[in-house]
Amino acid sequence: MAKYAKIPEATVRRLSNYLKCLIDLESRSEKVASSALIANLCNVNAPQVRKDFAYFGEFGIRGMGYNVKELKRHIKEILGINREWRIAVVGIGNMGSALLVYKDFLKQNYKIVAAFDIVPEKVIGHISERVGKPVEILHIDRLKEVIKARNVEIGIITTPPGAAQTVADLLIDANVKGILNFSPAPVKTPDHVKLRNLFFTSALDNLVYYMTN
Amino acid sequence: MAKYAKIPEATVRRLSNYLKCLIDLESRSEKVASSALIANLCNVNAPQVRKDFAYFGEFGIRGMGYNVKELKRHIKEILGINREWRIAVVGIGNMGSALLVYKDFLKQNYKIVAAFDIVPEKVIGHISERVGKPVEILHIDRLKEVIKARNVEIGIITTPPGAAQTVADLLIDANVKGILNFSPAPVKTPDHVKLRNLFFTSALDNLVYYMTN
Repeated sequence: MAKYAKIPEATVRRLSNYLKCLIDLESRSEKVASSALIANLCNVNAPQVRKDFAYFGEFGIRGMGYNVKELKRHIKEILGINREWRIAVVGIGNMGSALLVYKDFLKQNYKIVAAFDIVPEKVIGHISERVGKPVEILHIDRLKEVIKARNVEIGIITTPPGAAQTVADLLIDANVKGILNFSPAPVKTPDHVKLRNLFFTSALDNLVYYMTN
Repeated sequence: MAKYAKIPEATVRRLSNYLKCLIDLESRSEKVASSALIANLCNVNAPQVRKDFAYFGEFGIRGMGYNVKELKRHIKEILGINREWRIAVVGIGNMGSALLVYKDFLKQNYKIVAAFDIVPEKVIGHISERVGKPVEILHIDRLKEVIKARNVEIGIITTPPGAAQTVADLLIDANVKGILNFSPAPVKTPDHVKLRNLFFTSALDNLVYYMTN
């Protein structure tokens, strides 16, 4: 995939949003979409859409717009999500529970195949009561063994902040390739384990910046 | 704040992460931070940190690093979060409950002053059992009245996707200035109401892109 390595960070982010819009369009049986339509659905402007797509060569037809299915396939390939990714969620409180039932994951080939907590018995009670039991909640002591057995490549951290780095270290030791951290404590990983810290304050900071400026 | 209007989107995102690191440094009584330290804490490289800060003029001291308190104040001013922002959360399931107890919001002057659901009685039961009762959950019929009375400027949507646009329209009608949407359905707002759709699939797409490339 080295041919796409120079795509700017902001474009990578927008590609993901375009993909989401294309999936929605497809579910409404739309076959073709103009850059103007995609721009409108994704809250960007049409020249930006065309510019972003131009990084990957010409694959729209002038005056006709883009083939929805083709474009979707193309973006998935660029992002590396044209295959299944197996995920473990660690820390099944409110946030972890929300992720276990997040329906869009499956639509995009993200499969949660393991879930861990330090008090799984307690979790099983509240989660089955409220959201069913999408995946068995296991004790965190079994993390390494289960991650290997189930070929998990991505770990999601949804523990309280005090436990976040400990859990990250467990995931790294179990050889995951990427970590998405939802806890408000930033974690560190070695270079070979990719990391995204997702802070909700950052989402608000970003919104407020554009509300203010 | 027009003087900052040309800051690239990716820089705005990083500023927010720098701020989070600076708050952590301050809580550990650190007074001065080099660009190398900030870079290390935020998972970027030091030249990037210096380049980002250069958008706002020189406020580091060569060879000395940045004054943590000053830099924090400066970034808050740039982002527009040097004052309190009042927030309402709509839809108190797992995700909404997680936000109601997200401690970092208060650290950064984000104050959740209202919470709504279509079945508040049910919510009050499970939320008080699990997380205490940080704010009273009200019926969504009271949204407009309460948002006005409590000077709410930002609405956060944590409903199921089918309800997201309806709730967005209610928030717009109640004159909020910004909406952060956590539901997996993209919502639309008029130009004067700023919007961020936060899709968890996008966070994974982004992680996978850098894992693959």
